[in-house]
Amino acid sequence: MIKTKNSDSLADKLAQLYKGISEIIKQFQPEVLSIEEAFYGKNVKTALLMGHVRGVAMVAGRHAELEVHEYAARKIKSAVTGNGAADKQQVLFMVKRLLKLKEDPVTMDASDALAIAICHGLNYKLAKLGT
Amino acid sequence: MIKTKNSDSLADKLAQLYKGISEIIKQFQPEVLSIEEAFYGKNVKTALLMGHVRGVAMVAGRHAELEVHEYAARKIKSAVTGNGAADKQQVLFMVKRLLKLKEDPVTMDASDALAIAICHGLNYKLAKLGT
Repeated sequence: MIKTKNSDSLADKLAQLYKGISEIIKQFQPEVLSIEEAFYGKNVKTALLMGHVRGVAMVAGRHAELEVHEYAARKIKSAVTGNGAADKQQVLFMVKRLLKLKEDPVTMDASDALAIAICHGLNYKLAKLGT
Repeated sequence: MIKTKNSDSLADKLAQLYKGISEIIKQFQPEVLSIEEAFYGKNVKTALLMGHVRGVAMVAGRHAELEVHEYAARKIKSAVTGNGAADKQQVLFMVKRLLKLKEDPVTMDASDALAIAICHGLNYKLAKLGT
């Protein structure tokens, strides 16, 4: 998890986010960055802030020459639980089961992130089968 | 102006934006990047997309070790025209006058960008007087 200080400016927080993501990419050498498609909620302020964070994450991914894939929340939930409207607990339950984890992911956000990875893995396999 | 292709993915467009801004910074060697504070309109989708763009612009600025300043639209208009509710034509008129430009800025967006620079210049001068 990348933590920033409340007292930092938005620009500094975003730069820290970029640095944090770049370091994680360097450490784990993934080939793909998968990200949940932004949810168009009702709150304009939240959407705007989320946009900043997503934009920076995506650029950090492209700069590390990763493929960047976006998946809708419904698709992610459906890939992991078979139910596009599954709640976070169901997602966590299936993530743990599919990945044979002995303990719960540290946070719900971590569980969601693993779900997105599983979703991409499945889509990638299906795409390969199709060729 | 940085142009991207409609057919490119969002991640690729953002990477092009980052590259374009970085090149402009390298060419003109500014010390500061000033950006209009995001406007909380009604359209969540627009706000989200605008967030991506702003986030990437701010990170490109920080990566080039520029100060990043944000100014509210009202403050920018007020600095240039004396009227926080001025329209774009008034802003263009005063930008042209203050900068002694012989021709109109190429686009309204360029006029707005110059207005933001003037606003920062004024604020910076005032801040210096205060110390």
